[in-house]
Amino acid sequence: MSLAERVLRGDPRAAARLISMAEDGDPAARGEMETLYPHTGRAYIVGVTGPPGSGKSTLVDQLTERWRQEGKKIGIVAVDPSSPFTGGAILADRIRMQRHGTDEGVFIRSMASRGQMGGLARASYDAVQVLDAFGCEMILLETVGVGQDEVDIVRTADTVLVLAVPGLGDSVQVLKAGIMEIADIFVVGKADLEGADQVGRDLAALQEIEGGGRQGWMPPVIKVEGLSGSGVPELLRVIGEHREYMARSVEGEVRKRRRLETHLEQLLAGELMEQALESLRRSGKWEEALARLGRRDCDPYRLAQELAEQILVSPPSP
Amino acid sequence: MSLAERVLRGDPRAAARLISMAEDGDPAARGEMETLYPHTGRAYIVGVTGPPGSGKSTLVDQLTERWRQEGKKIGIVAVDPSSPFTGGAILADRIRMQRHGTDEGVFIRSMASRGQMGGLARASYDAVQVLDAFGCEMILLETVGVGQDEVDIVRTADTVLVLAVPGLGDSVQVLKAGIMEIADIFVVGKADLEGADQVGRDLAALQEIEGGGRQGWMPPVIKVEGLSGSGVPELLRVIGEHREYMARSVEGEVRKRRRLETHLEQLLAGELMEQALESLRRSGKWEEALARLGRRDCDPYRLAQELAEQILVSPPSP
Repeated sequence: MSLAERVLRGDPRAAARLISMAEDGDPAARGEMETLYPHTGRAYIVGVTGPPGSGKSTLVDQLTERWRQEGKKIGIVAVDPSSPFTGGAILADRIRMQRHGTDEGVFIRSMASRGQMGGLARASYDAVQVLDAFGCEMILLETVGVGQDEVDIVRTADTVLVLAVPGLGDSVQVLKAGIMEIADIFVVGKADLEGADQVGRDLAALQEIEGGGRQGWMPPVIKVEGLSGSGVPELLRVIGEHREYMARSVEGEVRKRRRLETHLEQLLAGELMEQALESLRRSGKWEEALARLGRRDCDPYRLAQELAEQILVSPPSP
Repeated sequence: MSLAERVLRGDPRAAARLISMAEDGDPAARGEMETLYPHTGRAYIVGVTGPPGSGKSTLVDQLTERWRQEGKKIGIVAVDPSSPFTGGAILADRIRMQRHGTDEGVFIRSMASRGQMGGLARASYDAVQVLDAFGCEMILLETVGVGQDEVDIVRTADTVLVLAVPGLGDSVQVLKAGIMEIADIFVVGKADLEGADQVGRDLAALQEIEGGGRQGWMPPVIKVEGLSGSGVPELLRVIGEHREYMARSVEGEVRKRRRLETHLEQLLAGELMEQALESLRRSGKWEEALARLGRRDCDPYRLAQELAEQILVSPPSP
């Protein structure tokens, strides 16, 4: 039985194996992913992001627990590019394993960045696809770090939760460029701490200014206390509202299309580089280019442009 | 006078402007970068990386101060992908400005991640090239965060300093996968703190195990106390030794070649995607592909492969 077939039958080891293969860029993964594709598109993907220490993992655990009580199969994909140094992903996994590790209804996977050129984005996308085909009804896509790559990954989710936290400085600063606009729901974590109300008010005020001309969904601010789980039922209700809203609005259509486009771009970038490098190496042009660079015969900017023009059909007119 | 000419005459505003243009992917930057290229290749690039809190900025400041005393012109490129949330880059700049901001011999630039697909790597490379042409003799390439992207960026430096710090857990853990192998020199920061000696011993022991069969340069472990600067003279001496070693060894040749190859790959990836997307959009194939995806007519893996084959000359045989 193929790995894909085993995934479709709900074999967690097969799912883990296929995600690893895709992460490593194993060429055999593509055929398996193609087999899985008709069985994807059913999972609902909830993105969770926020600065370090904002309680993302706790929130993910809380949501997992509630959804498990409803009998849903859950996938958790935690994107953690900080692994080379801290081993953060492994640690987070261990902590979670204590809670959900023996529960067959929860599949947990950490993604560390491997390779270059959008490798993390593609690997995360593949992991989500595998868990979707594996039968996870809800997939939590958590970005542990804070880089732009991760913002780009999390924004492909159906509903994006952005966590803010009191005590990490000016709350407006915490949510600057690129973050305000990807949030579907703001979650103010650690609601028990002093200042949570202020963060909530700041966010609401900021939205009124920023969202003056905004149409459609206005991201609400929900307060959640991680350890006790207070606020989680309200959050679940609002996630449900957002889901309904996206299902029947133009915004939902636009997001679906943007997601398809982002993923196709990621896959195309990988294919292009793989095929182009293979072709250039086989023809000896890559070696030649490196030799020219080594002699400083040509600048790398012009050289890259020339190589691209040489291997692309009908290059655009200048 | 062109921007490139102004950079070559040492105009810092022109350098800042060109780096921003390159970072934004402004097409006009390419011509300027081509003009600068013959004037690059003279700077010595020292990479500095390590986990958060290991004292990278302090070390960079210390090195800057010593090199300034020797009358050298210094460039600092700080890669900080954490900006979307924390504004860390801006903060670090402000702190540094207090010390070196009025010194015309020091050019400081923070790079936040913009765009996708290796955008940060390419932008950092461009910044280093501009500062090289600008006349900086030493360029400090500091990666503030800890992702794989940044490891890939810092490893292109001539000499790579990896900081370890006591008190951040098991020191072996701190320096796992991918970090040991990129270090030319280990720096144990905060040498005044308890445990620094232990980190030094752990690193030395680990190297003996890992480096059992290793030929050539064995990364030494240097203890530095950030605030007092004790240990910095020894570090400078060892950087000099490594520089001499690389200038006359096969390892140095290999690294130079790998750096050229990495940069050419980054530039090629950008060119390919730019030209390919333009061509696919113009011919209507991109819209068609997205429509097929929307109907779930075809899986994105096969589609990306097909698109790549269609727009690349002489696709490789299967």
